[in-house]
Amino acid sequence: MGEFELISRFFAAAPCAQGGEGIALGIGDDCALLALPAGEQLAVSTDTLVAGVHFADPCDPFLLGQRSLAVAVSDLAAMGANPLAFTLALTTPSVDIDWLQRYAQGLNAMAQSCGVGLVGGDTTRGPLSLTLTVFGSVPAGQALTRSGARPGDLLCVGGELGNAAGALPLVLGQRTADAAITEPLLAHYWSPQPQLALGLALRGKATAAMDISDGLLADCGHIAKASAVRLVVERHRLPLSTALLAFVGEDQARVAALSGGDDYVLAFTLPASQLVPLQAGNWPVHVIGRVEAGQGVTLLDANGQDVTPAVRGYQHFRRAP
Amino acid sequence: MGEFELISRFFAAAPCAQGGEGIALGIGDDCALLALPAGEQLAVSTDTLVAGVHFADPCDPFLLGQRSLAVAVSDLAAMGANPLAFTLALTTPSVDIDWLQRYAQGLNAMAQSCGVGLVGGDTTRGPLSLTLTVFGSVPAGQALTRSGARPGDLLCVGGELGNAAGALPLVLGQRTADAAITEPLLAHYWSPQPQLALGLALRGKATAAMDISDGLLADCGHIAKASAVRLVVERHRLPLSTALLAFVGEDQARVAALSGGDDYVLAFTLPASQLVPLQAGNWPVHVIGRVEAGQGVTLLDANGQDVTPAVRGYQHFRRAP
Repeated sequence: MGEFELISRFFAAAPCAQGGEGIALGIGDDCALLALPAGEQLAVSTDTLVAGVHFADPCDPFLLGQRSLAVAVSDLAAMGANPLAFTLALTTPSVDIDWLQRYAQGLNAMAQSCGVGLVGGDTTRGPLSLTLTVFGSVPAGQALTRSGARPGDLLCVGGELGNAAGALPLVLGQRTADAAITEPLLAHYWSPQPQLALGLALRGKATAAMDISDGLLADCGHIAKASAVRLVVERHRLPLSTALLAFVGEDQARVAALSGGDDYVLAFTLPASQLVPLQAGNWPVHVIGRVEAGQGVTLLDANGQDVTPAVRGYQHFRRAP
Repeated sequence: MGEFELISRFFAAAPCAQGGEGIALGIGDDCALLALPAGEQLAVSTDTLVAGVHFADPCDPFLLGQRSLAVAVSDLAAMGANPLAFTLALTTPSVDIDWLQRYAQGLNAMAQSCGVGLVGGDTTRGPLSLTLTVFGSVPAGQALTRSGARPGDLLCVGGELGNAAGALPLVLGQRTADAAITEPLLAHYWSPQPQLALGLALRGKATAAMDISDGLLADCGHIAKASAVRLVVERHRLPLSTALLAFVGEDQARVAALSGGDDYVLAFTLPASQLVPLQAGNWPVHVIGRVEAGQGVTLLDANGQDVTPAVRGYQHFRRAP
């Protein structure tokens, strides 16, 4: 048995690989088999994280395990899908049992939190990178896409913005701060919580949705393009955390909220009539703007002046470290 | 728009990304959506190919495109699944449009041949590697697994063995030979044909199946373990190609057939009563041994002597180049 077969067995023995609802056949055969409820479709998304590009190397493997799964599952939340399973393709330069154990522990913690089971993947030798493919199910015709926003809809987000981008100087060890600041910011960076429940609650209510990974303005641009509308963002309505404001001040906090990546908070549009029912259900819904006829994204200040910046988001490969 | 978004658009415009049966939503949203026929399950498999480990770098990107998809789809064949779709996670150190075009052309050619559509993925900067996740559908309960082989079954393969391993000195430029030898061997290495039709024909007939990627003996070991039986391979019955025999001679051809990797030919077990119907249907079925009570894999020579080697297969990371 080669050392890479050892890794496979290691992950096959992890708690998150022990099956679950919808998993007809897990790790160990040529394919895994997934069973979908009648009338449901399969939602699929793939994300790759490369060492030195998407995360610093070395970094805490437990936190990397959490984060690598969370960013992938967030795409299921954005479709309003029920999480089901995932595969892990791990490429690593060497077999470090301690690293693998801690990575698997982080992966397990997030898998348990999100309700997904590991059903397969591949382990190979090479420069460190992780490709996770996640699977969910959604009733046919009820998935939240980017293409249904209509003029008159409200533009909303599901939580505070900019925390992950604000955390970057902490992640990279470039700055320090009090625990009251560092703990919430680092938690947001390393273990973002995919808004799965919110995604389900938005089915039949939101007209468009996506998760914010490239920065609010850039991602709003994706909805605007797919829906052939203009999205208007009101800068003074952005929800900002106390920790972020204390760490970088209001101006930089807004920059992080508008253009920083890695929030993994849902952005969505919905008719005004749907707002009260969602708020009554205690769902996190922050209105930050509206949908108009037109195209692109416009940023307004508190006086209604157009303050749209020229560059709207980070490029993945410029992000970190 | 960043250069990596350009790559995404490049693949989104490829012919194999233009939808097809079962693809409810393709590239461009947070997730793709797949629709399965009623009563069918989803078969999923993930394979990573790393430059310098699983393929020589540089190599012909068209051939790499073909091969990277074929090795993944072969796992669908091994389950008796109908091919449906795939995702591509491409990590590349730089944006080389010519390389990408030729890679996409090879990918398209194999996608068309196999009947799968590209539904999503990720493009990232980093050391060259490719992770493909393939999707198929199979009626619930009819998938071919590794675990159903029973004593008394015949052990069969779906084609000639050892050609890809035999081709390796040609792939690496270590040897030359006449076109009559090099063409079939290199074709087998660079564009293996997943035995999808054979996999479908084996549904309800084969008791166990897998595709040979690590070498016949190693992969027979997987069936033996999963089924809790012994597999007996008769060395003189191995199907060997004229080109391989002419290139390396009979002894080395048998070594390549037994322990070389990358054949992507199906190995399967079936009751003797199923042999004649399959042969009558002109399916490629070569009987190479039998299933017995016991465990492990035993290799016999033409006189029935046990000639089982100690080491049974290549390790992925030792393979090439």
